[in-house]
Amino acid sequence: MTKHYFNGISTVAYQGIDSTDPLSFRWYRHDKKLLGKTMAEHLKFAVCYWHTFCWTGTDPFGGDTFIRPWFNDTDPMRAARNKADAAFELYRILGVPYFTFHDRDIAPEGDTLAESNANVRQIGELFADKMQATGMKLLWGTANLFSHRRYMAGAATNPDPQVFAYAAGQVKNVLELTHELKGSNYVLWGGREGYETLLNTDMKRELQQLGRFINMVVEHKHKIGFKGTVLIEPKPCEPTRHQYDFDVASVYAFLKSFGLEDEVKINIEQNHAILAGHSFEHEIALAQALGVFGSIDMNRGDYLCGWDTDQFPDSLGEVTMALYTLLKGGGFDTGGLNFDAKIRRQSLDPEDLVYAHVGAIDLCAHALIIAARMIEDKLLSDFVAARYSGWHQPENASILEGKATLADLSDKVINAKLDPQPVSGRQEFLENLVNRYF
Amino acid sequence: MTKHYFNGISTVAYQGIDSTDPLSFRWYRHDKKLLGKTMAEHLKFAVCYWHTFCWTGTDPFGGDTFIRPWFNDTDPMRAARNKADAAFELYRILGVPYFTFHDRDIAPEGDTLAESNANVRQIGELFADKMQATGMKLLWGTANLFSHRRYMAGAATNPDPQVFAYAAGQVKNVLELTHELKGSNYVLWGGREGYETLLNTDMKRELQQLGRFINMVVEHKHKIGFKGTVLIEPKPCEPTRHQYDFDVASVYAFLKSFGLEDEVKINIEQNHAILAGHSFEHEIALAQALGVFGSIDMNRGDYLCGWDTDQFPDSLGEVTMALYTLLKGGGFDTGGLNFDAKIRRQSLDPEDLVYAHVGAIDLCAHALIIAARMIEDKLLSDFVAARYSGWHQPENASILEGKATLADLSDKVINAKLDPQPVSGRQEFLENLVNRYF
Amino acid sequence: MTKHYFNGISTVAYQGIDSTDPLSFRWYRHDKKLLGKTMAEHLKFAVCYWHTFCWTGTDPFGGDTFIRPWFNDTDPMRAARNKADAAFELYRILGVPYFTFHDRDIAPEGDTLAESNANVRQIGELFADKMQATGMKLLWGTANLFSHRRYMAGAATNPDPQVFAYAAGQVKNVLELTHELKGSNYVLWGGREGYETLLNTDMKRELQQLGRFINMVVEHKHKIGFKGTVLIEPKPCEPTRHQYDFDVASVYAFLKSFGLEDEVKINIEQNHAILAGHSFEHEIALAQALGVFGSIDMNRGDYLCGWDTDQFPDSLGEVTMALYTLLKGGGFDTGGLNFDAKIRRQSLDPEDLVYAHVGAIDLCAHALIIAARMIEDKLLSDFVAARYSGWHQPENASILEGKATLADLSDKVINAKLDPQPVSGRQEFLENLVNRYF
Amino acid sequence: MTKHYFNGISTVAYQGIDSTDPLSFRWYRHDKKLLGKTMAEHLKFAVCYWHTFCWTGTDPFGGDTFIRPWFNDTDPMRAARNKADAAFELYRILGVPYFTFHDRDIAPEGDTLAESNANVRQIGELFADKMQATGMKLLWGTANLFSHRRYMAGAATNPDPQVFAYAAGQVKNVLELTHELKGSNYVLWGGREGYETLLNTDMKRELQQLGRFINMVVEHKHKIGFKGTVLIEPKPCEPTRHQYDFDVASVYAFLKSFGLEDEVKINIEQNHAILAGHSFEHEIALAQALGVFGSIDMNRGDYLCGWDTDQFPDSLGEVTMALYTLLKGGGFDTGGLNFDAKIRRQSLDPEDLVYAHVGAIDLCAHALIIAARMIEDKLLSDFVAARYSGWHQPENASILEGKATLADLSDKVINAKLDPQPVSGRQEFLENLVNRYF
Repeated sequence: MTKHYFNGISTVAYQGIDSTDPLSFRWYRHDKKLLGKTMAEHLKFAVCYWHTFCWTGTDPFGGDTFIRPWFNDTDPMRAARNKADAAFELYRILGVPYFTFHDRDIAPEGDTLAESNANVRQIGELFADKMQATGMKLLWGTANLFSHRRYMAGAATNPDPQVFAYAAGQVKNVLELTHELKGSNYVLWGGREGYETLLNTDMKRELQQLGRFINMVVEHKHKIGFKGTVLIEPKPCEPTRHQYDFDVASVYAFLKSFGLEDEVKINIEQNHAILAGHSFEHEIALAQALGVFGSIDMNRGDYLCGWDTDQFPDSLGEVTMALYTLLKGGGFDTGGLNFDAKIRRQSLDPEDLVYAHVGAIDLCAHALIIAARMIEDKLLSDFVAARYSGWHQPENASILEGKATLADLSDKVINAKLDPQPVSGRQEFLENLVNRYF
Repeated sequence: MTKHYFNGISTVAYQGIDSTDPLSFRWYRHDKKLLGKTMAEHLKFAVCYWHTFCWTGTDPFGGDTFIRPWFNDTDPMRAARNKADAAFELYRILGVPYFTFHDRDIAPEGDTLAESNANVRQIGELFADKMQATGMKLLWGTANLFSHRRYMAGAATNPDPQVFAYAAGQVKNVLELTHELKGSNYVLWGGREGYETLLNTDMKRELQQLGRFINMVVEHKHKIGFKGTVLIEPKPCEPTRHQYDFDVASVYAFLKSFGLEDEVKINIEQNHAILAGHSFEHEIALAQALGVFGSIDMNRGDYLCGWDTDQFPDSLGEVTMALYTLLKGGGFDTGGLNFDAKIRRQSLDPEDLVYAHVGAIDLCAHALIIAARMIEDKLLSDFVAARYSGWHQPENASILEGKATLADLSDKVINAKLDPQPVSGRQEFLENLVNRYF
Repeated sequence: MTKHYFNGISTVAYQGIDSTDPLSFRWYRHDKKLLGKTMAEHLKFAVCYWHTFCWTGTDPFGGDTFIRPWFNDTDPMRAARNKADAAFELYRILGVPYFTFHDRDIAPEGDTLAESNANVRQIGELFADKMQATGMKLLWGTANLFSHRRYMAGAATNPDPQVFAYAAGQVKNVLELTHELKGSNYVLWGGREGYETLLNTDMKRELQQLGRFINMVVEHKHKIGFKGTVLIEPKPCEPTRHQYDFDVASVYAFLKSFGLEDEVKINIEQNHAILAGHSFEHEIALAQALGVFGSIDMNRGDYLCGWDTDQFPDSLGEVTMALYTLLKGGGFDTGGLNFDAKIRRQSLDPEDLVYAHVGAIDLCAHALIIAARMIEDKLLSDFVAARYSGWHQPENASILEGKATLADLSDKVINAKLDPQPVSGRQEFLENLVNRYF
Repeated sequence: MTKHYFNGISTVAYQGIDSTDPLSFRWYRHDKKLLGKTMAEHLKFAVCYWHTFCWTGTDPFGGDTFIRPWFNDTDPMRAARNKADAAFELYRILGVPYFTFHDRDIAPEGDTLAESNANVRQIGELFADKMQATGMKLLWGTANLFSHRRYMAGAATNPDPQVFAYAAGQVKNVLELTHELKGSNYVLWGGREGYETLLNTDMKRELQQLGRFINMVVEHKHKIGFKGTVLIEPKPCEPTRHQYDFDVASVYAFLKSFGLEDEVKINIEQNHAILAGHSFEHEIALAQALGVFGSIDMNRGDYLCGWDTDQFPDSLGEVTMALYTLLKGGGFDTGGLNFDAKIRRQSLDPEDLVYAHVGAIDLCAHALIIAARMIEDKLLSDFVAARYSGWHQPENASILEGKATLADLSDKVINAKLDPQPVSGRQEFLENLVNRYF
């Protein structure tokens, strides 16, 4: 008999916008079609293992606040199995199609790498069974190369080559498991790939180590035939004072340096974007423009606090602009929308986990509906197209094709006494137009 | 007879560290040798035209506070000549070897581009004479593509191709003048190359416009035989909400995208670095690591205010770490140290301009002396080298040479049951070591 | 015959939520009743003179972009009259009930204070006529004590007592004019009351100067019989590096220090709040809790830029929470909702001014409707009340009444072996509840 | 026989500025006199228990990195005694006169409050013996009202009155112990006194709870005859999203509201100051100006990271300005200089604790020597005095005495046609003057 961890909450169902049931969806109907695809196909929701099933509610000044029933077992592997039961119970309640995990989320570290890897694989087998039984899919797997003290000075960028090798051993194991579980992607987040102080750091060498490491991962991916996408997730700092994968532009610079721009794409998180000084939609749009957009970690940071609060999204306006940007760029390929979000440490109860996900799913669905209307109406995109229409005139188009020199253009301005006049950018008009959708 | 603008202040001289004369140098002796070069050769000081001779003391809530004698003339070209006299008077007083300018700093805008360009060239001829007479050199020239309302929506990235052409006409003129004046570099700062709102912006198109523009500049440079370096100066925002040249990594990503990484280098400013969330020395070290370090705009921002305060540097500690980083990377090639700094708007008097530069020059000289000792002592660099020494063992060096796979390293860890132990990073020890130099 | 400045735009009318006319209201119906008051009574919209009619579109790196027809006149007083015509034309178009101004917005500075004051009074007479004719009201007047170079080092806090006196002369004039125009409030914004560097500042003395100055204003208010409220508007910095009126708490500390807490209330601006590290609703709620809430400057800052962007509000979520907080505290007394907001410098056309205000008014009206429903439903307030209900038990209520000592409570815990258990704060549940209203 | 925890490091001694021994002082000579007091009397160094002896090296993404020998004991009270041995060993090595602690730092939590309090008192007795034997003094004690999950929603501001009572029981115990150990001060840091979301918070009620709580502490202090100072330590956020004790001004506003301004003083920390947007010396100077300056937590934050890094100070410039401000205001009364600083989590070894404190002590001593020279030279203070000298003229002095009205001053300006001219603030001159001391 299966134990139940969520107080008997059954499946959360769509009940329409008049519903006042906090455990219903008012907007999310997985099979509702928009722009030719179902909501489920557009949004590809994933629930993450770490924040949702592993986090204990600590913060830098406080200890555990959560006392989860699945934490309690003297045998760590049995606790890991209980956790998997809790996870799949929540997936069923929510009706989400995907999940994501780090190796250390799902299974305890053993005495050796071999033992740790074996623990991970044991739970991997349990996952395979549960996925088979439920239809759940894996959006991505990843290796935790940041929590253990061996990684305190970096994994791939560690001064100690043995740590680099150890990281390789962890990644190989999770990459292979991800392949076996038919994961859509494999993610690398370099929380320790950076420095605390330049005084003890050789940045150039560390970047080369990191470049070689990612190339090894890509080579191994091809060797084992994994067809998913390798993703890097940028973050500017925290835990490390400076992280090399600062933002989309930094990651792209790195990929170009090491010839990886056709092999690796980017997983973008709202909270990481704003910590780097960028809006969420900026990072999405830039990755699209550079051809390296991959996936999304959906959460929200607090603009007035300078750390990664990883809250569940709650701003309809912001999520709409992010999804509008996503749709404009063609939506997800192998990527999806992973809730890399944690409930507040005062939200003690397992049902708080349900509330949080239900609210976030519904918010994204509501935002998707609005964003789809923006796409269909074309009012915004037509405005933008018209604004640049001068560039479609042949003499101007040829400039970008490289057919004009600095001197050609200078001559043209001087000879014709050109005095181009500025044209209103209509920002407030456009902001009003967006607000008309709410 | 030459008019005097600086109240009869004569040349500022080195008087040694016991001097209490506020118009003396206590540390800067231009011909003092350190690490095989004179201070002047190491530091290559430049005074900028705009903040020092053009700024009127406005801020977003207040009007002019400075009433410079060289502002007063009914004929704008005569005012421009007076300004040049004032500038070369200050250069003489300070004994600096270089200056820098935008076209609009040195000469008034005319009714047409042709007239504006001609105005610039007239003052350029005056400069040639004064440079001949005094030995002053031009560190770099640049075109102001941001102040006039025609550029409000971008220069190279403007939706209007005529504005792109207009910008080309300005750059051609200043690039050629810079070449004639034997400038060491030509700088591009894209204060309007970005966006105010994504709602009216086609980011991908704008990046392509910018890429073509910079390529045109590089092509023209080669055509006219200019041997100086083309530099891009990153800044994350202000005036524009988001600027494409956000930081060193963003510029490098851009250069790689458009095949410019061997043609263009980077001019790094302290205040721009910290607005982007990076330390000054981070940006210098990263540019060095990527092979694109060019030049420095020396100033300081206020870490607690979120805009470009462009203050004169006053922190011996910070400037020392910046110069230590500079020296570690081999110092300047064509670049130099430009004081892109403005006195406070309450510092009304021309002598405040002198105080500010004297203090900044002396601070840099003091910092250079300390940084040179750090280089000579090798205590810091030896520590770093030792920290990574494991990577020099043949089996580890071969990893970076691409001779090991993920599987090889995984096997090695598993077979040898490796359990690498963390080693102290000794940050506080190193910080103490640095403080020993003060 | 009156000249028209807004391209023949006539009155903006309510057309309902299906309207696609960008010059209509979809939500704002001035006489629609909510919670017993009309929308107009709740919101008390005011249009400000400075950003809307005086601003030329400059920024720290660019010159004027706006070329308003009412700027063009060789006689500055005639230009001032034209500006007043333009202003009242826009008020009529928008149908707003209030306006606000600084003395220097409405009339040019003369050669002496007497002349400047007389200029202000002349336009004041014109205002009186126009107000009589149209029914427009003055929400508040204020003196510009920050733009002129005489105030660069402070007005009340200036090291020069003559500047203090000069400021007194300006304030007396505008306070009296405000009284004559039956203004509801008089505002003090101390943009220069602070310091650039502590090196030249006697903070304690400056605070005393400021305390005496505000007391003089209050004394004069009573002397002339002005019944409106004196308001202070906090801002942490910009233009000055540190401003004494940093935030609501700082102003309250100041008021308490000088016995002014019953005489002066606070005018809160969103952009100033976030620059100080607080949410808009925090500042409103804190001022309410301290009994000093006065009025609102409605705008929005960019959370990712560190300066006062003063944009028109565009976030329905944020404005709703601000208005919900306002309503919870009982709404405005003499205060109102002033759009201290400026269109972007690329929004060149007079009609952009109309779009901006129409959008902002409609957004506030939409937010008000939602906020009123939140108030009526009481779901949020009931949750909060229940959370603290333990404090209503007599033994606990008596604690706050001062009837228990530290020892009493210690004894109680120890004797009863109390071990209070944490209860979920339900943050995500509440955030979902709020989102149900959108 | 005493176990040794610091690898046989003996006392750190003054060896003069030429010393290259990393375990020597180059500047700190405890009995060297400056301005009539010894360095030890001026600086009153304290080492804190929590960061130095309790911290395990965790961060939000990583587990323990420190494995201290004094952590290892199956009996928690024996571990607590070992920790005390380690602490007093380090105090002896460093030669510092003071220490500071929270109740939970020194002794483990028991099953009940009574047991927890008793544990604290047992270690308190051990402290009494060790203090007797060594001459060590207690700068302040404090109760940890933030780590345990019972305090997750506040201690004094908790919605549950039982938690308020529990906090009272903890504070009573530590306040009495502090009294018995002849502590100079008692500190309150309200890390949980604030809110995570206004949605579930009654701010006004919570402020009243806090006001009553602090009054109870003050009443108990007088009842038991404790002569030390009660201190509040401001911090704007972290762990809580908003904390009521945001900064000096907020705390002062709170103290004035509850009649506590003569009973409570403020303990100022550098990292907390900058998180609130203020410089360290601003907070010190403001507290002095308001008459509530108490004590200092000396550390440094990273201006480019938005959380409390609590690093050891390393900037000679910044510490000098802080100590100059301290000295200008008359130095410490009951307060002192507590190193509320933690070594980096990569600084694994016990000797890193020694390096960190040695460096920080020496930096402060160096800064004190410089600051004392600034005081003696009076160049800075004379400049400031001269700048405000106009206010000493009788007619101006009388303004601050309340003898002039707004109308008087207005008349004076108008009648005399006053046109006060701005005077240079000489900021760069003063910054150069400061740099002359380095």
